[in-house]
Amino acid sequence: MKKYIAEFIGTMWLVFGGCGAAVLAAAYPALGIGFIGVAFAFGLTVLTGVYAFGHISGGHFNPAVSFGLWVGGRFSGKDLIPYIIAQILGGILGATILYLIATGKPGFELGGFATNGYGANSPGGYSLLACLICEITMTFMFVMIILGATHKNAPKGFAGIAIGLGLTLIHLVSIPVTNTSVNPARSIAPALFVGASATSQLWLFCIAPIIGATIAGLVYKCLAPNKE
Amino acid sequence: MKKYIAEFIGTMWLVFGGCGAAVLAAAYPALGIGFIGVAFAFGLTVLTGVYAFGHISGGHFNPAVSFGLWVGGRFSGKDLIPYIIAQILGGILGATILYLIATGKPGFELGGFATNGYGANSPGGYSLLACLICEITMTFMFVMIILGATHKNAPKGFAGIAIGLGLTLIHLVSIPVTNTSVNPARSIAPALFVGASATSQLWLFCIAPIIGATIAGLVYKCLAPNKE
Amino acid sequence: MKKYIAEFIGTMWLVFGGCGAAVLAAAYPALGIGFIGVAFAFGLTVLTGVYAFGHISGGHFNPAVSFGLWVGGRFSGKDLIPYIIAQILGGILGATILYLIATGKPGFELGGFATNGYGANSPGGYSLLACLICEITMTFMFVMIILGATHKNAPKGFAGIAIGLGLTLIHLVSIPVTNTSVNPARSIAPALFVGASATSQLWLFCIAPIIGATIAGLVYKCLAPNKE
Amino acid sequence: MKKYIAEFIGTMWLVFGGCGAAVLAAAYPALGIGFIGVAFAFGLTVLTGVYAFGHISGGHFNPAVSFGLWVGGRFSGKDLIPYIIAQILGGILGATILYLIATGKPGFELGGFATNGYGANSPGGYSLLACLICEITMTFMFVMIILGATHKNAPKGFAGIAIGLGLTLIHLVSIPVTNTSVNPARSIAPALFVGASATSQLWLFCIAPIIGATIAGLVYKCLAPNKE
Repeated sequence: MKKYIAEFIGTMWLVFGGCGAAVLAAAYPALGIGFIGVAFAFGLTVLTGVYAFGHISGGHFNPAVSFGLWVGGRFSGKDLIPYIIAQILGGILGATILYLIATGKPGFELGGFATNGYGANSPGGYSLLACLICEITMTFMFVMIILGATHKNAPKGFAGIAIGLGLTLIHLVSIPVTNTSVNPARSIAPALFVGASATSQLWLFCIAPIIGATIAGLVYKCLAPNKE
Repeated sequence: MKKYIAEFIGTMWLVFGGCGAAVLAAAYPALGIGFIGVAFAFGLTVLTGVYAFGHISGGHFNPAVSFGLWVGGRFSGKDLIPYIIAQILGGILGATILYLIATGKPGFELGGFATNGYGANSPGGYSLLACLICEITMTFMFVMIILGATHKNAPKGFAGIAIGLGLTLIHLVSIPVTNTSVNPARSIAPALFVGASATSQLWLFCIAPIIGATIAGLVYKCLAPNKE
Repeated sequence: MKKYIAEFIGTMWLVFGGCGAAVLAAAYPALGIGFIGVAFAFGLTVLTGVYAFGHISGGHFNPAVSFGLWVGGRFSGKDLIPYIIAQILGGILGATILYLIATGKPGFELGGFATNGYGANSPGGYSLLACLICEITMTFMFVMIILGATHKNAPKGFAGIAIGLGLTLIHLVSIPVTNTSVNPARSIAPALFVGASATSQLWLFCIAPIIGATIAGLVYKCLAPNKE
Repeated sequence: MKKYIAEFIGTMWLVFGGCGAAVLAAAYPALGIGFIGVAFAFGLTVLTGVYAFGHISGGHFNPAVSFGLWVGGRFSGKDLIPYIIAQILGGILGATILYLIATGKPGFELGGFATNGYGANSPGGYSLLACLICEITMTFMFVMIILGATHKNAPKGFAGIAIGLGLTLIHLVSIPVTNTSVNPARSIAPALFVGASATSQLWLFCIAPIIGATIAGLVYKCLAPNKE
């Protein structure tokens, strides 16, 4: 039970911190943090979460990561469903706290509320195909970094830095394309507040990360220097 | 005595460095560091303070952290009051040094002097309730990160990185809301220079961090994999 | 074979992530990540790649690095050619994925596509000689950092941080000069998409990094505290 | 001899990388890295230098640091003068390489060339007294961080991160005040290219860092948990 609570709180933190930076601080007049600040915010939610909760739950905070680790033989199948449920619920709590704070500003408009999107909902207007390629590639590399940095041959303790800053890197590149998901729980939570325009596109941000994570699990199995 | 001096110097550094970045450098014309630079400055005061003084005092630099660690059973109650006094005095020294430097610029105007605030004093005009929720949530997660990253099962030595960059993350999200406190000593020091408009709101930045830290201490006790 | 695949994927990541940040996100209106975001993106491709793949291939992702390590006596000559081939092919895959995503935006114009250049193709219009000095100096220091941080006397595990953030530093300084190469594989890949204006200048971004890396290999051999 | 060469190269890197970011990239139109990019550049020269050369020379790259470590009983007096000479010469080489590159841009104007200054030469016009207080305080804390993070009770291997990012923090706050020195070698090198307007103010950037470092050496001696 402790590990499910850790995943719940960690994914709350990922959505509240990452989407919070985007909604509250990115476009603040003159002094706003921009996409680079949002990229660091998302990455640092995971960096901090891994050091705080990694020794309890492994620190996934992402259904695609749990799935990819299972494909790669590094995570037990019987925990997969409870982890994913805890992550989705945690994400929803994170978006709810963010909504309560954001609406405390007079004249607040919901707008995209940091949802992910393709085509007309892509920040830069990127096509469905471009967004699909981007999310698959990014999640593939994210799960490769996780599998590699937590491998027993990798230096001990550094995985949280590599994984967290890997998520920062992913956002530095792909916020203009899809607003960056690589994480179904991160996509679902804010979409519930925005409604049909966002939820109708959720399928891509569930399928593409799972595809990328699956490929990573299979590739890393071949690449790994020693079986664990 | 050594540990009280370490907390005194470390909290001086937190207030001087963090508020100094905000007052001196954030809005410098064209080249200013913005909220993202202030967020890194606050976080790096703690990252550097933990590696410099952590082995002497534990590296709290924050009354809410000391309180939360005490609630979580990781800090001795007899040191609580002396730590808090050292932190508040250190913060005041930090704000005093900053004041001496800032007033060395012709035409300097005190303005907010990096104080925290809600309602009319919130940078983005956020309501009292939004600011309360934000400070409680942020301090809760800050103390969760501290309790988790310094747990005996967590990787050794990395706590300073996780805690420092955790404070950076907190600022990336919440500077527009409350100017970010999560630390009564950080709130008190600049408010003494600004006067009634700031000191009249100090209650929130003392109570909310203590509430968040208390919840974290209680939650982590349940979540921790092994009692220490 | 595993190590060649690791170099292939890692160099794909370096080119896709670094050039991707430049092409997709640097100049996004109002919220773009600028040169500082591109600098972090390049550095974090290497930081993450070293932790993910370093224990498989050493984590070079750069023909000049492989060459310099060979000169410095830290890399086997028989692996040099296959590593360089894997790196160049990986870079081309990275640029191809980037091209597929970037062209998914209506009205996309190829422009420089993050190629390196001197003279008229230098972002700031720097002369051939200035660009040559810059690339030699930067690659010299990059390989010095790699040789030093991976030396047996250096702290264990930190090399990925030093090397990755070293590449960030190199970009912070030299993007305006040459768009920063220090890596022939990174230069070749986007140039193939841009054509003659870029490929005609590739010689400099192959020769200068090799010269800098060779000097580093020779200097570090003299400087190293203990032979390995 | 090896350690003097390491200090020579490391200080070359500090001045070339840090001042180079300021001169070449800070104010690049639209995409420039600003003061925050310069702050990271200076910090990362030291972070990378410590991991590359720390096991050879200790990684000072700064006469005030060598002096403060000697006062604190952590550095041998017989190496003090050769270290300082190597550092000053290395800094001059760094500024020379930067000059060669910078003048390769048509229409380049020398301007301040990243020199430090007070009063009329302070970026924000800060008074001599404000600049003196700022440099003393910053160098005091820089040397405190170095003494603390390299103490035998501190976590092993992390000193390079704490020290490097500590220098980043110092720049985030104080570039507007003095353009940030805390290092006589960093101040001397560019001043030689600018001439009397800069060299006439060098006394402050030699004396203030030495004062701050001396206080740190004395204070840390009292604060250190165990004599070494």
